Amino acid sequence: MREVYLDNAATTPLLPEVREAMIPYLGDVFGNPSSLHDWGDGSREAMETARDQVAQLIGADSDEIIFTGSGTESNNFAVKGLALAQQSKGKHVVVSAIEHFSVLHSAKTLGKWGFEVDEVPVDKYGVVDPEEVRKRLRKDTVLVSIMHANGEVGTIEPIKEIAGITSKLKVPFHTDAVAKAGTIPVDVRELGVDALSLAGNQFYGPKGVGALWLRKGVRIMPLLDGGIQEGGRRAGTENVPAIVGLGKAAELAKTDMESRVKRLTPLRDRLLKELPRKVGHVVVTGHPQNRLPGHASFCVEFIEGEAMLMLLNSKGIAVSSGSACTSRALKASHVLIAMGLPHELAQGSILLTLGIGNTPEDVDYVLEVMPPIVDRLRQMSPLYAKFTKTVKGGK
Amino acid sequence: MREVYLDNAATTPLLPEVREAMIPYLGDVFGNPSSLHDWGDGSREAMETARDQVAQLIGADSDEIIFTGSGTESNNFAVKGLALAQQSKGKHVVVSAIEHFSVLHSAKTLGKWGFEVDEVPVDKYGVVDPEEVRKRLRKDTVLVSIMHANGEVGTIEPIKEIAGITSKLKVPFHTDAVAKAGTIPVDVRELGVDALSLAGNQFYGPKGVGALWLRKGVRIMPLLDGGIQEGGRRAGTENVPAIVGLGKAAELAKTDMESRVKRLTPLRDRLLKELPRKVGHVVVTGHPQNRLPGHASFCVEFIEGEAMLMLLNSKGIAVSSGSACTSRALKASHVLIAMGLPHELAQGSILLTLGIGNTPEDVDYVLEVMPPIVDRLRQMSPLYAKFTKTVKGGK
Repeated sequence: MREVYLDNAATTPLLPEVREAMIPYLGDVFGNPSSLHDWGDGSREAMETARDQVAQLIGADSDEIIFTGSGTESNNFAVKGLALAQQSKGKHVVVSAIEHFSVLHSAKTLGKWGFEVDEVPVDKYGVVDPEEVRKRLRKDTVLVSIMHANGEVGTIEPIKEIAGITSKLKVPFHTDAVAKAGTIPVDVRELGVDALSLAGNQFYGPKGVGALWLRKGVRIMPLLDGGIQEGGRRAGTENVPAIVGLGKAAELAKTDMESRVKRLTPLRDRLLKELPRKVGHVVVTGHPQNRLPGHASFCVEFIEGEAMLMLLNSKGIAVSSGSACTSRALKASHVLIAMGLPHELAQGSILLTLGIGNTPEDVDYVLEVMPPIVDRLRQMSPLYAKFTKTVKGGK
Repeated sequence: MREVYLDNAATTPLLPEVREAMIPYLGDVFGNPSSLHDWGDGSREAMETARDQVAQLIGADSDEIIFTGSGTESNNFAVKGLALAQQSKGKHVVVSAIEHFSVLHSAKTLGKWGFEVDEVPVDKYGVVDPEEVRKRLRKDTVLVSIMHANGEVGTIEPIKEIAGITSKLKVPFHTDAVAKAGTIPVDVRELGVDALSLAGNQFYGPKGVGALWLRKGVRIMPLLDGGIQEGGRRAGTENVPAIVGLGKAAELAKTDMESRVKRLTPLRDRLLKELPRKVGHVVVTGHPQNRLPGHASFCVEFIEGEAMLMLLNSKGIAVSSGSACTSRALKASHVLIAMGLPHELAQGSILLTLGIGNTPEDVDYVLEVMPPIVDRLRQMSPLYAKFTKTVKGGK
């Protein structure tokens, strides 16, 4: 059976070049980078090369990069750490309604600590209106956190415009770029943000490693207290092989970005155009154009996303029905609900996220396999039966 | 030149068997364990095998193991998470004066949040007296955190005796076993503790992974908010290869523990006995017998630990002068100061931590190389000049 992995939003495979770069650090070069002897030197130098590579990917200085254990950790660190470091100035925080749970739940935790959290709504495409952010800014606002691109619907947010507003008012602005950094160009200076999260396993690097870019001079409170690693801002023995892998993945992403985008975009556009036509009663979710290059997401009427996922899996196709981080909770996505989709429709959510390993033939296969699967599920759907009855009755 | 790595307390090398176990998860088996399709299954199953292996190492149930990104994260999670989860009952926390900074600084952060932190002193060997813990317990004590073994001086603490006291008063008791788990037997039921931290890179497993064992029914507040991984207690895409490596290392540690201890103990004992004799003016730090099997630590009078470290390094020998986590801070160790050593002597701290790769010949080499190095440094030491003058003057 053909195997087609279309769940690159959940995690990407590791590139062979990245794995090769990591292997020595799982072998002879094992020293603790904090050690003062030669065994530490090899690890430390490799880590600093990786720091340069990550900095170059996003137009930053190396000493502004703090390595973390995941995109989730970067987001927790940024949201809690920035808010707590500024709390003498106020306790008001602004986030969007469609943030990843690592941002939303961190904000919720801030709520327990006496912070007030305002959620900015989004339009039907999942776009944040910068004016809606402006309206919510107050004298005691100490943090704005709006994501760069949404991993569930692919929509890219107007970060530069929002930063134009926050920077005038000198409110620290963090953006969760986990779904975007390494996929399309990100330049922190051009964006004008103060902090940015990214994760290795979103652009063919390893799991277990992320980074927080923090503009020089911005104060943050550590999430992990202890040793003086990462300039005293993130304690713990550094995960050298994963950090080396993140660096290599960042280097490759920068070099190959243009060609990757050129390959993925037409494949995505075919899915966005042909899948609704072939399946019927399908809504594209997220912005029609301004979206991640490999990201096609839909809601299929009258059936449940998980059922589609399982049947596609039986045909060798991996997709998801929402964020992997909450897949087992089987709840309607807060992102789709915030975009105004009815609960029933949101249950039919399906994400097809392409990666650099995918081919036009993969797309052909999905377009061939999916319509009969949806038909089969609809035959069993009481909602669909009710719908067809109504339509016939109305004739 | 001979190469002798004697800094296993900073980090251990990865065993080849552990690396082999990890490799598939840096290749074909790359799925996100939270994904519902076949690509996720392989990762998820491997992770659950690792959870069993870690549980078996410490006599726990699998569902009590929470994977983290490091020993430091496990300690931050335990100290902050347990205290915050119980804060309605009180805001008093007890730690020892010689905890790792990931515990001490986490307690300091609790201090900023209105907690009162009591530090239990230690004796000249670095041993905590359980009675000193008992004296500090109050009605509003919500957490005791005392380490299982100290990574700087090797002393093993009377955890079972302390747990006997805390459990009667129903105060949650966490022990940082990062320096000990995987090295000598640990059984959480026998110990009677409520939470225990461990880390992969302390027993020939990978960096970037640790675990917190948490007794069933004990409440904790997450440190990393977000997705529902690890039962909603530790969000973030799981570092599958590192988790697999931790599991394999745990399995090997359990199988080989007895033979490892038998090999390391006599090597350690030779160092503890012969180094002071050969070098002169050397104090063994930590408990003379009740200490980690591979752990030899000393204070050498009249010279600085870092200078010895550098010269030993030039002879191919890796040692450290304290905790790797703070090596670059170049301050006298809080552990040695708490044990009552004068600042001057504490500056001469040197740790030789043996691993399963070391041989009797390695010990011979160190015992041969070290005396002339110390002599050379002493010739340059104003403190030594003063000392010899006084001695001569006293004749």
